[in-house]
Amino acid sequence: MILVTIIGAGNVATHLFKAFNKAENITVNQWFSRDTNTISAHKNEVEIINDLSQLKQADIYILAISDDAIAGVSEQLPFENRIVLHTSGSVGVYDMDKKHRRGVFYPLQTFSKTADIDFKNVPICIETINKKDYSIVKALAVAIGSPTKKVNSDQRRVLHLAAVFVNNFTNQLYRIGHEITESEGAEFDLLKPLILETAKKVQDLSPYRAQTGPAKRHDKKTIRKHLKQLKNNHHKAIYELLTYSIQKTHGRKKL
Amino acid sequence: MILVTIIGAGNVATHLFKAFNKAENITVNQWFSRDTNTISAHKNEVEIINDLSQLKQADIYILAISDDAIAGVSEQLPFENRIVLHTSGSVGVYDMDKKHRRGVFYPLQTFSKTADIDFKNVPICIETINKKDYSIVKALAVAIGSPTKKVNSDQRRVLHLAAVFVNNFTNQLYRIGHEITESEGAEFDLLKPLILETAKKVQDLSPYRAQTGPAKRHDKKTIRKHLKQLKNNHHKAIYELLTYSIQKTHGRKKL
Repeated sequence: MILVTIIGAGNVATHLFKAFNKAENITVNQWFSRDTNTISAHKNEVEIINDLSQLKQADIYILAISDDAIAGVSEQLPFENRIVLHTSGSVGVYDMDKKHRRGVFYPLQTFSKTADIDFKNVPICIETINKKDYSIVKALAVAIGSPTKKVNSDQRRVLHLAAVFVNNFTNQLYRIGHEITESEGAEFDLLKPLILETAKKVQDLSPYRAQTGPAKRHDKKTIRKHLKQLKNNHHKAIYELLTYSIQKTHGRKKL
Repeated sequence: MILVTIIGAGNVATHLFKAFNKAENITVNQWFSRDTNTISAHKNEVEIINDLSQLKQADIYILAISDDAIAGVSEQLPFENRIVLHTSGSVGVYDMDKKHRRGVFYPLQTFSKTADIDFKNVPICIETINKKDYSIVKALAVAIGSPTKKVNSDQRRVLHLAAVFVNNFTNQLYRIGHEITESEGAEFDLLKPLILETAKKVQDLSPYRAQTGPAKRHDKKTIRKHLKQLKNNHHKAIYELLTYSIQKTHGRKKL
């Protein structure tokens, strides 16, 4: 049995709580939030506290809090020599107070408040300063069904950065697709199967090999047509930059 | 029973052939390719021809050929007053020879040579010049299990353009994610569940509501860190433009 304490009450904290609480060999003994109201719905499942001095002994303390708060809260923890993990993609493991056995438990996924998440689809990137702490942290991830990967701080930072490209920026392209279609009275819904297929394709195929379309084909006629169609200069700039990017990746076709 | 003839031998033609051939109430009576070798694997399933003068009577002729060839081939067809459909997202319905009963059968999906495709996930955008031709064209799409939508040429062009954003450009962001991770010895594979979840999210939620991340939060510190991490100026330009785009969409947070 792994005894876990969660500190923080945001999306990641809440999804982790639910997953830990459901797992057979994990017990969440306390959940800390400055404002206990935000998590009071769970008061029958776990002891909720709002004062760090009330923290009891646990095997692992999870800091699922904002990046800026990690260093400070780690200092305020009223104990030492226990395993303390943060869940951030971009904060270094050494940014936490050195009185702890420090590590990182970074779930590489997008969490929304409403949608339930299956931790089978959430790779946990693990880092621990002490080698001997690694196995219990890995056991924690395995207990909720997640794949795990040992990832150092540099690799984690780069994954976090890449996640912005494949998640936030991709989602913005969906948004532009939405704007473009709606502006002509076409239905964005028609694009949804394509969106899903595009994401599925790269599960097996490299993005390089999965690429298609006018930019890769260097189909100047279609590209010109598209640029003429785009009324919004900002959309045009994105079209031009990403078309250039695809052509940079796939080289110039000989005429 | 709908009698169909396919003209063309590319990805779309091949996937359509397979779907039509499998459907109970469709018969593909002929398949035309200039180079019959490309489709000779199917010679036991359908009559393969390479001469337009050999074309027999059919209910529907499908021109699944490159955009530039559509007008010319439609002229060369040695008959008139029959239903002829092209499958292009960007060619107008009036670009075909007016001797035909013209229409469009545009499958809004990405087709690869290797992967099988389930036409349940391929919305067919239908346009016919003559109203009375619509029902048989729709029946053809329904017979292969596709959802259908009546879409005029302007709407179709805009869908085709939006498809470039949500498919080709999105795939290029996956590619950049690949480049960034590999450059630091991190595994692109770890991003695959995130890629899938990002696409799944907008099946139910608008891209506007699905957005998260540093750009939307106006988290200047993280954005600055990310820009510093990016060694490639081209990646930097894309990061800046798409961050700006997200902030344009989601407005400035008050400080």
